[in-house]
Amino acid sequence: MKKVAVIGAGSWGTALSMVLADNGYKVSLWSHRKEQADEILNEHTNEKYLPGVVLSDRIEGTSQLGNALDQAAAILLVVPAKAMRDVLRQIKSSLKQPVLFIHGVKGIEPGSFKRMSEVIEEEIPETLRTAVVVLSGPSHAEEVSLRHPTTVAVASSNLEAAKKAQDLFFNHYFRVYTNEDTVGVEIGGALKNIIALGAGILDGLGYGDNAKAALITRGLAEISRLGTKMGAHPLTFIGLTGMGDLIVTCTSIHSRNWRAGNLLGKGEKLDAVLQQMGMVVEGVRTAEAANALALKMNIEMPITAAIYQVLFDGKHPKDAVDELMDRDKKDEIAPLSHSLAEKIVREQ
Amino acid sequence: MKKVAVIGAGSWGTALSMVLADNGYKVSLWSHRKEQADEILNEHTNEKYLPGVVLSDRIEGTSQLGNALDQAAAILLVVPAKAMRDVLRQIKSSLKQPVLFIHGVKGIEPGSFKRMSEVIEEEIPETLRTAVVVLSGPSHAEEVSLRHPTTVAVASSNLEAAKKAQDLFFNHYFRVYTNEDTVGVEIGGALKNIIALGAGILDGLGYGDNAKAALITRGLAEISRLGTKMGAHPLTFIGLTGMGDLIVTCTSIHSRNWRAGNLLGKGEKLDAVLQQMGMVVEGVRTAEAANALALKMNIEMPITAAIYQVLFDGKHPKDAVDELMDRDKKDEIAPLSHSLAEKIVREQ
Repeated sequence: MKKVAVIGAGSWGTALSMVLADNGYKVSLWSHRKEQADEILNEHTNEKYLPGVVLSDRIEGTSQLGNALDQAAAILLVVPAKAMRDVLRQIKSSLKQPVLFIHGVKGIEPGSFKRMSEVIEEEIPETLRTAVVVLSGPSHAEEVSLRHPTTVAVASSNLEAAKKAQDLFFNHYFRVYTNEDTVGVEIGGALKNIIALGAGILDGLGYGDNAKAALITRGLAEISRLGTKMGAHPLTFIGLTGMGDLIVTCTSIHSRNWRAGNLLGKGEKLDAVLQQMGMVVEGVRTAEAANALALKMNIEMPITAAIYQVLFDGKHPKDAVDELMDRDKKDEIAPLSHSLAEKIVREQ
Repeated sequence: MKKVAVIGAGSWGTALSMVLADNGYKVSLWSHRKEQADEILNEHTNEKYLPGVVLSDRIEGTSQLGNALDQAAAILLVVPAKAMRDVLRQIKSSLKQPVLFIHGVKGIEPGSFKRMSEVIEEEIPETLRTAVVVLSGPSHAEEVSLRHPTTVAVASSNLEAAKKAQDLFFNHYFRVYTNEDTVGVEIGGALKNIIALGAGILDGLGYGDNAKAALITRGLAEISRLGTKMGAHPLTFIGLTGMGDLIVTCTSIHSRNWRAGNLLGKGEKLDAVLQQMGMVVEGVRTAEAANALALKMNIEMPITAAIYQVLFDGKHPKDAVDELMDRDKKDEIAPLSHSLAEKIVREQ
């Protein structure tokens, strides 16, 4: 029986471990907290993150990174974006064989604005990795743990590696599509949180479905513009990791980003909102990063800029919406279409 | 003051008349029912379709088609798809000058499977029309009548005509984008109702957000495949009239199609559902048309086929979902990407 090391025992890491166990793999699920690792190993539960769920005995908890990595055919990384580089350095010093690296992290590195696969490639030498794959899509962990139908994409510039990841996870309730566009999948997964903040703001202002559909659609259009300039394929954004994940995040009132936006829309200031939330709101950090990237790369991202101004410049949300609606008349797809045509012709 | 004839005084025709009146145009709003036309003319209300809303006195109700068309610079058609051809024949016999034809109808003609702009071009001779434009997007009429922020697209193969339509409707709460892809806009608007049925079915089965996001995303992917084969631009489907409208329709429990799907998902049969609904469920008719088109054009549309089988072959919804999840492993965007690349290279 092949073994997979899953690094990070939050709800998503644990749910993906269940999929692997259902598919017959042995899973070593690493947590940096010994108490949690012991609960997984001995009680076959992870109550804090997936309450009420019983884990297969093919899933073994461990807090020893060396144990987790020993004999693993693949490593699945599911840690917070800001912890990724540090965890990779620990892995590098423990790893003995070259393995397939897969990550399921939605975010970009604070400060450097780097994508997760870039961080992996920087920290893990080529001699210790066969390839890097990202797994992403519209997937509440709780629903996966109930084995409800779920679809995700696995992306890698190395299509054979993506197919290997597809084989690891694919089953009758977890449908996995391959994609060769790592950049598009990673950018979509990270930037959706900005739009979720915006969705909360609109609801806080009392606007309706029309406004939210406009935000999601035109928000994705500007994410696509940025992503395409960074090398992504525009059609990735119409897929599971772009539009699919965006829909789930913007229409679920359980989303942390939506809740923070909702308070902002009702007139509260960012400091007060963050204090009330008592936890990290990723969209806030991502809005800062995306706004900086858009300015640096000279890409028009009016929605991101408006959300940035509401967050950091004290602009009233209603004024931000009015200004967005009053901009010049535009064509809907021409800008993206032209850059896509250039890209495809260049590649022929 | 320029005049626009709005043909059809349902909630959407009336809301669009309000936008035109706000923009300074005189509107002749035609209803085939004299009583309703008189209410609009004398009471400045249309209680059945937009309860509680007061209409501008620039909007005049009429049940005389000749009156409505007299001196009109543009005609906006907002009638049921199945009534379109008949109404056009009446217009043709009353119309004296060539005008701009705009329509806001989401549907295809029953039987012929023709798009609305095709029907207009068949029925109205070139001497009586300057161009044909379709207006579509995520837009509940009630929200437009409250002047809440709304975005739509106006599409025409004649970009100058699309810009004229943009100028007619654009204002600070109604943002209008041009698009040159009539086919894509019309196909997206019509076929979304099939996916809304599917969303209701999944909710009826008790599945969650993951499944619904998969349905919407992969549903749009197969609509894009059909549309692209019919000559649409794939990026239109990522826009307001594709993804945008689809999100609104699939996440609003007020949608007739969603409600019908929900009953099917709970195990009721089509006949019983249609009897309970007591009105037309467009997605049912559209599923039949799209399934026939897919077979005829040899396009893979597994979700449409599954919904067709649930509707007409008595397949159990849960079996349909299981079969969809169990199909061969696929790549996410490669099929669409290849056909797009061919199209773009051909056009260079």
